[in-house]
Amino acid sequence: MTSDLHWDTKITAIAPNEIRLRGYRFDELMGRVSFAEAIYLALTGELPDEKVGDLLNAILVASIDHGASPPSTLAARTAASTGAPLNAALAAGILSINRYHGGAVEGCMEAIAEVHVHIETGLNLNEAAAQVVGKARAEKRRIPGLGHRIHSDDPRTARLFELADAAGITGEGVEAIKALRDALAETGRDLPINVDGAIAGILADLGLPPELANAFFIMARVPGLIAHIHEETAEQRPMRRIHPTDHGYEGPEPRTLD
Amino acid sequence: MTSDLHWDTKITAIAPNEIRLRGYRFDELMGRVSFAEAIYLALTGELPDEKVGDLLNAILVASIDHGASPPSTLAARTAASTGAPLNAALAAGILSINRYHGGAVEGCMEAIAEVHVHIETGLNLNEAAAQVVGKARAEKRRIPGLGHRIHSDDPRTARLFELADAAGITGEGVEAIKALRDALAETGRDLPINVDGAIAGILADLGLPPELANAFFIMARVPGLIAHIHEETAEQRPMRRIHPTDHGYEGPEPRTLD
Amino acid sequence: MTSDLHWDTKITAIAPNEIRLRGYRFDELMGRVSFAEAIYLALTGELPDEKVGDLLNAILVASIDHGASPPSTLAARTAASTGAPLNAALAAGILSINRYHGGAVEGCMEAIAEVHVHIETGLNLNEAAAQVVGKARAEKRRIPGLGHRIHSDDPRTARLFELADAAGITGEGVEAIKALRDALAETGRDLPINVDGAIAGILADLGLPPELANAFFIMARVPGLIAHIHEETAEQRPMRRIHPTDHGYEGPEPRTLD
Amino acid sequence: MTSDLHWDTKITAIAPNEIRLRGYRFDELMGRVSFAEAIYLALTGELPDEKVGDLLNAILVASIDHGASPPSTLAARTAASTGAPLNAALAAGILSINRYHGGAVEGCMEAIAEVHVHIETGLNLNEAAAQVVGKARAEKRRIPGLGHRIHSDDPRTARLFELADAAGITGEGVEAIKALRDALAETGRDLPINVDGAIAGILADLGLPPELANAFFIMARVPGLIAHIHEETAEQRPMRRIHPTDHGYEGPEPRTLD
Repeated sequence: MTSDLHWDTKITAIAPNEIRLRGYRFDELMGRVSFAEAIYLALTGELPDEKVGDLLNAILVASIDHGASPPSTLAARTAASTGAPLNAALAAGILSINRYHGGAVEGCMEAIAEVHVHIETGLNLNEAAAQVVGKARAEKRRIPGLGHRIHSDDPRTARLFELADAAGITGEGVEAIKALRDALAETGRDLPINVDGAIAGILADLGLPPELANAFFIMARVPGLIAHIHEETAEQRPMRRIHPTDHGYEGPEPRTLD
Repeated sequence: MTSDLHWDTKITAIAPNEIRLRGYRFDELMGRVSFAEAIYLALTGELPDEKVGDLLNAILVASIDHGASPPSTLAARTAASTGAPLNAALAAGILSINRYHGGAVEGCMEAIAEVHVHIETGLNLNEAAAQVVGKARAEKRRIPGLGHRIHSDDPRTARLFELADAAGITGEGVEAIKALRDALAETGRDLPINVDGAIAGILADLGLPPELANAFFIMARVPGLIAHIHEETAEQRPMRRIHPTDHGYEGPEPRTLD
Repeated sequence: MTSDLHWDTKITAIAPNEIRLRGYRFDELMGRVSFAEAIYLALTGELPDEKVGDLLNAILVASIDHGASPPSTLAARTAASTGAPLNAALAAGILSINRYHGGAVEGCMEAIAEVHVHIETGLNLNEAAAQVVGKARAEKRRIPGLGHRIHSDDPRTARLFELADAAGITGEGVEAIKALRDALAETGRDLPINVDGAIAGILADLGLPPELANAFFIMARVPGLIAHIHEETAEQRPMRRIHPTDHGYEGPEPRTLD
Repeated sequence: MTSDLHWDTKITAIAPNEIRLRGYRFDELMGRVSFAEAIYLALTGELPDEKVGDLLNAILVASIDHGASPPSTLAARTAASTGAPLNAALAAGILSINRYHGGAVEGCMEAIAEVHVHIETGLNLNEAAAQVVGKARAEKRRIPGLGHRIHSDDPRTARLFELADAAGITGEGVEAIKALRDALAETGRDLPINVDGAIAGILADLGLPPELANAFFIMARVPGLIAHIHEETAEQRPMRRIHPTDHGYEGPEPRTLD
């Protein structure tokens, strides 16, 4: 029965014994495409090629966790510590991902877009980047995606750029973040491209809109938050006082894949 | 400085320019393991083998979305429709995944565990399953993982069992859910194993605890919820009245991978 | 022990057997001031006088509920319907209070502030209001606080203005929203001041900042959301399809206080 | 138009220019009943008498805040510190009110109900309380509502009992929590009735169901959480490390109402 409130979606079609995501049967996708590729399909409507699929997997792996210090982790553990069910503790964590934590990918994609606006007015890449850096410095703003509190040479950045090259998608997005780094270095601030900056450049080259940038960070971090919630519930006593910085690591020793 | 509130985590170790998940360097994992495998590593502490990795990818792909009807989707769209930022709308969706929606995997894992408790007391598999079914029927409870409102023969179920066989992990978990289905059919109720029942059997065979079962459903559904939130924000007007059932599909036509 | 993370709050002091809110002992406040007055104390640091206390009570009563249609109510009921605990369903409701629902008080306070900026540049009240209305119309924006989908003459508005007069606080805030209504009527759009507009004017006259405006709406609506969650859980079956508009009222018949 | 999804609510009736809460016109309630009385009306369907209204106001004032240590406060501040909007930070706080924090009122009401079950089987009050205490001690459980980490003689408790006496509603609920305290003291554990125990006894005497007990704590604490969120946003820098115990008070000096 069609009512005056009828509406349509372009994501998933459900019929008895046949479920299709953006046109593809779920049971055909299962075992043929990775979760990361299915995520891309769900969000954009198209499957990535295999190399881009590898790159997307790497982007999601890169942001899965960053230890016990991030506020989203502390909020999720705080909720879990009061006896919150898993989904409620996860929601508390996700609600703590905002402008100042997890927002750098989106912010960096906006800076990249700004570079390209200047290029369209006739500037070359380096001039455009210098304009964006100059404006940010005049307004005493940082360029999101450059610099890291802990890592002076983030190992995730080089790996992501390698995989983007292997996928053949490195383009104006990655070039723009590199130009922004160089333009900032010219002003005497030699800051490395961090993992968020690398992801921003790559997502721009994949043609994703900035408003989905934050989505990639959140999707990647959800399993990490769940791991922390599970650990908090399983191994800590309820209502403990959770110190935000005085924590260490007592998990498996360093090891390698081979 | 160590305080009297010092605590430890076993998940991630952070040192300048070296980040390790359960002992492995992130930059080594990236490009080598899929997001699904890294999720398993984050949650359990160990990497799965390659076939199990494929199976985990399939489990997560299977639950990524189920159209516009689930309450988590409607809650997320309702929040998005009022102007909620992405993370807040996602949290509203996640908070609507509970006992009656998304809880079937955990419920079914508990039924499977109950079967195994009976086996330990000396019953064989079919007798044990009959006990569990008999008790549920006496208490007028359904067996989670059996039957579906829409799908009489859920295509995702067969595919998951195929992939579990290929991974060589099919064991007492999958056998228990099949025995539960048969025991229920003996009582005259011939209900198929649904996708949640298949996942429950497989997660049991992988040795995962029931309390992480729900986590797999939530992790899988997060990208689907984000796709709906993005669509709501991009294509619908704010504050529209969202009909819970009167909606259709106008996305890509049916298509195949090859 | 004081650490380098020491911080201070100005809200509540806790000592053994002595708890003080903004300097006052809780046990002295209890029975002497109303909840609404204590809310004002908690938020602003000072107690209101008795008449203002009555007005605050009325503001909070005015927004306690608006039936089953608002998206926050539907989101809270949707979550409750899946088996969410009370706090999770409430959170889903609160996350659905944003720019397009519940944001009118804040938006109207900003319009009022805009009027006063024009007055400071030398315009009189009516000229200033005409400027603000003209700009909004040029940008095809509505003036928050004017007009209502259902109520052409909101009975809560007149009552609030009465109580504000009785409290002796009617001033530039209330005058500004009235001037905005008149300026809009001059353009041929004769819209009444709605309850949000009345509250905005009064909160402005009380000297509250716009960022607390939304807080008053949320605090008022929390009990209403809880009433709906409680009703949903107690009287409806789980996982029902919740129609957003096709609902009626079957509660107590119309009655009066005397 | 009535559809097959039609449903009804008993809370609020909306008609053009006439809004009624449980039968009473909003504009009549405003200025005549306090917010606390309207809350009671919304939740239970009836208005309390004036003395009970004073008591309800006192109950809600009593729990409005308890300083910076509670996990709900820390979670709300953590979210706010990342740039969360007010409603999202509030939701993070509310999601941290669970069994181990804020759950004592409900737990104590259940203990009180247990006492009355024993009385119905023929025991007198003291015997019944001894049974409940004995069972809890055998299972190494605490009795919720007795004892406090900080307050050996909670000043809010005596005040609440005074106001309950003044309202003439002190009955089997308050008597039961006092009997539980005495029965526990008999076993050598002399713990005071805390504010949650006092509220539990009173809510039981008002005939409220335990599942609404938690609601009273949450409704009372919402303004306190908002005060902390507002303070965090206004006075602290984003992303600061929030120490869970090393904080002090620098607000108004001790003062009295007169």
